[in-house]
Amino acid sequence: MNNCLIGQSGGPTAVINASLFGVMDEAMKSPQIDNVYGMLNGIEGFLEDSYMDMSTLSDFDRAALRTTPGAYLGSCRYKLPEALDDPVYAKLFEKFKKLDISYFFYIGGNDSMDTVSKLSRYQDVHGEKIHIVGIPKTIDNDLVLTDHTPGFGSAAKFVASAVREITRDACVYDRESVTIIEIMGRHAGWLTAASVLARQEEDDNPVLIYLPEKNFDEDAFIKDLQTSFNRRKNLVVCVSEGIHDSDGLFVCEHSNDIAVDNFGHKILTGCGKYLENLVKSRLNVKVRSVELNVTQRCTTEYLSNTDLSEAEGAGRFGVIKAIDGMSGFMSAFTRKSNRPYTMEYTTVDVNEVCNMEKTVPDEWITDNGTNVSKALIEYLMPLIQGKATPLVKDGLNYFAYRK
Amino acid sequence: MNNCLIGQSGGPTAVINASLFGVMDEAMKSPQIDNVYGMLNGIEGFLEDSYMDMSTLSDFDRAALRTTPGAYLGSCRYKLPEALDDPVYAKLFEKFKKLDISYFFYIGGNDSMDTVSKLSRYQDVHGEKIHIVGIPKTIDNDLVLTDHTPGFGSAAKFVASAVREITRDACVYDRESVTIIEIMGRHAGWLTAASVLARQEEDDNPVLIYLPEKNFDEDAFIKDLQTSFNRRKNLVVCVSEGIHDSDGLFVCEHSNDIAVDNFGHKILTGCGKYLENLVKSRLNVKVRSVELNVTQRCTTEYLSNTDLSEAEGAGRFGVIKAIDGMSGFMSAFTRKSNRPYTMEYTTVDVNEVCNMEKTVPDEWITDNGTNVSKALIEYLMPLIQGKATPLVKDGLNYFAYRK
Repeated sequence: MNNCLIGQSGGPTAVINASLFGVMDEAMKSPQIDNVYGMLNGIEGFLEDSYMDMSTLSDFDRAALRTTPGAYLGSCRYKLPEALDDPVYAKLFEKFKKLDISYFFYIGGNDSMDTVSKLSRYQDVHGEKIHIVGIPKTIDNDLVLTDHTPGFGSAAKFVASAVREITRDACVYDRESVTIIEIMGRHAGWLTAASVLARQEEDDNPVLIYLPEKNFDEDAFIKDLQTSFNRRKNLVVCVSEGIHDSDGLFVCEHSNDIAVDNFGHKILTGCGKYLENLVKSRLNVKVRSVELNVTQRCTTEYLSNTDLSEAEGAGRFGVIKAIDGMSGFMSAFTRKSNRPYTMEYTTVDVNEVCNMEKTVPDEWITDNGTNVSKALIEYLMPLIQGKATPLVKDGLNYFAYRK
Repeated sequence: MNNCLIGQSGGPTAVINASLFGVMDEAMKSPQIDNVYGMLNGIEGFLEDSYMDMSTLSDFDRAALRTTPGAYLGSCRYKLPEALDDPVYAKLFEKFKKLDISYFFYIGGNDSMDTVSKLSRYQDVHGEKIHIVGIPKTIDNDLVLTDHTPGFGSAAKFVASAVREITRDACVYDRESVTIIEIMGRHAGWLTAASVLARQEEDDNPVLIYLPEKNFDEDAFIKDLQTSFNRRKNLVVCVSEGIHDSDGLFVCEHSNDIAVDNFGHKILTGCGKYLENLVKSRLNVKVRSVELNVTQRCTTEYLSNTDLSEAEGAGRFGVIKAIDGMSGFMSAFTRKSNRPYTMEYTTVDVNEVCNMEKTVPDEWITDNGTNVSKALIEYLMPLIQGKATPLVKDGLNYFAYRK
C-alpha cells in the first residue's frame, strides 16, 4: 500500500483549502496512490492519532471545499524540536508506517516548511523513504525562492478593494478628516503595499502608505499629513500592523505601556487605534481608524481567481513531482512575464525556504517611505485578476466544514 | 422652468447612490422636469451655493454610480432649526426659486426626514409650491412605517457573510476560543440580528447574539459562554455596538472611565474590545474581537441585488408620485408576502416618520436575549437575495466620484 497524508498548519487563508483540494484530487486520481488521509490539526493532532479518510468527504463538501476559507482539516502552531534525535520523530514515523504513508504533503508558511525540512532531514539520516513535500501558503507573501505565495493574491485583492470602498465612505463630508487603515503583516509589507491598487488615479487616496520595511517616525507622519491636506480634504492612510520606530519598537506597543483597563490589564490596541489617538491629539481634524483584521484572510467574494487556481495548482504540482520521485521540496512559482502574465511551477529545496523571510525590496518603496513604486504595481496587478464563484445557497456563500 | 434638486444626507450606505441614480434617471426622462441638479454636501453645502448640474456626469460616472458606495454628492449632518421662522428657511427657498426648483428629493435617514418634514411644513405655511420628497436610506433599518429601508439588505448580507467567513477562520485550532464580532447599530439591533443568517445549520456559530433592545449583563454573558463551551470548542459571539447595562450605560463606556493613553486622552475602544478583555480576565481561553466597522456600509461585492433594485426603485417611485402631484411624503415599502417575496412601493407622511425609531420587536428576540426567532429569519431572508455586478476595471470594482 502507498498511502498519502495531507496536513494544514499555521494561520488560515482564503485559499488554503484550494491547495488541500488540489493535493487530494490529484492524489486520488493517481494510480500510484491508494488511500488519501488528512491529519486533523496538523502534526500536533496527528501525534494524538487524529486523522480522517478523505474519501469519506460528502459530494457537497468536495464541491464547496475549494472556496471555503479557514482550514478544513484544522490547523496547529506546533514546532518540531531542533534535535533530530528527539523521540517525537521516531513516534511520528512509526505512525506514518502504521498508515502505510508513502507521500506526505504539508500546506503552510515558514514554520510549516520548517516541519517539512526537519522531517526530510530526519528521514535522510534514518533511511526512511517517504516523499515529503511542502505546499506554500501565506497571505504575507514572505516566502523566499518563490515569486509569490498562494493566499497573497486574494488577500491583496481584498485589501485593495476594501481600501477603495472605505475611501468612498471616508470622503462624504466637507470637513478635513484622516482615516487610518491597519493592514496585516508584522515584518513584510506586501499586503499593505497592495493598498496602492485602491487608487483609481495616480494621486488618489490612499495618500500615504507605511510599510514595516522602513522605520516609522511620528513627527514625520504628522508632517506628511499636513502636507497632504494641501492636496485634498479627506485623507486615507494605510499602515502595516508591524510599523515600528527606529529602535525597533512596534508603534502598537507605544500605547500599551500606559493604557490599563479596569481588570488591571494592559489594553492592547493596534497601531491604527494608536495613530488615531495621536492624530487627534496633534491635528484638529476628524479621525477614524479601521482594522481590517481577519477578514483579510477569509473573505471569499474578493477571491482572486488567479490565486485560487495557483493554490490548487501548487497542490497538484506537488503530487506530480512526488510521484516522479522527488522529496524535500516546496512547490514554487517562477514568473515568466507580466504582460501577459505567465507563470511556471517549480520545485525549490525546502531547507532553503524555511525560517527565511522575504520583505519588500527597498527600491520598491518610494517618497521617503510613504509610497510604493510602479514596479511594485506591475508585480501586484496579475495576482489579483479574475473572479471566483463560490458555491451559493439561499443567497450566501456556502462552506465545507467538519461538524 | 420646472427643475429638480437632489440631495444626500447622513451616513453613507452601499446603495445610497442607487437611489440617487433612480431619482436622477427618472427625473431626466420625465417631460415635466427640465434640469436636474444635485446639491453638494446636502442642505449645508447648498446654503453655500454648492450644487452641480447632473447632466454633466460623464457616461462612465453614470454607468458606475449605481454600485458606488459613499455618497456621490457628498453628505452633511445638518439639522434645520426647530423654529420655522428662522431666516435660514427663507434663504433656502430663495435659493430654490433662483434655480426654478419645483421638485426636491432628499435621500437619507431619520435626521434627513426631519429636514424634509420641516421644509414641507414651512412651505405649507408660506404657500410655496415645491414637491418635497424623502427617499429612505439607512443600514440601521430603523425607520417606521416602512417594512425595511434601502441599505439594510446589503449591510445585512455583508454581516451574515462576514460572520460566516470569520467563523471558519475562528475554528481552525483545537483549543477553546471566543471570537467577538462587533456590529453597527446603536439603538436598533436589526443588523446584528442578521448575523443569525451566518449559521449553515441551526446550532452553528454564532452561538450567542446580543442586541441593544435587551439589557446586557456581564455575569450572564460569561455564564452563557461557559454553557456554550459544552456544545463546541470555538465560540463566535455577535454583539451590537449599542449593547448597554440595565442603567442604560453603553458597555463600550465601561472601559472609557479608566483607560487613558499617553496623550492623556481616554482610549475609546468599542464594546467588542471591552468584552475581549472581560473574557480574557474571566476565562482561560483564546479571545479575539473583530469590529466590522464601516466595511458594513461600503462593501460592494456583497450587495444584495434586491436591496440595490429597491434603493433605485424608491428613488424612481418618489419622482413618479411627485409628478403625480404629491409632496411631503417618503417612499416606503410594504411587504405583501415572504415566499415568494413580493413588495409594493407606497408613500407615507414624512412627518410621521421623522424622529421615530423602529427597533427589533421583543417577540423576535429569544433565549433570554441571546438569540433571535425564526420569524425574524423569515423577515430577513428575502432582503439579502440576489447578486449585483459592480463595474470592474483592471480586476477591481470601479467607482464614480467627483474629483
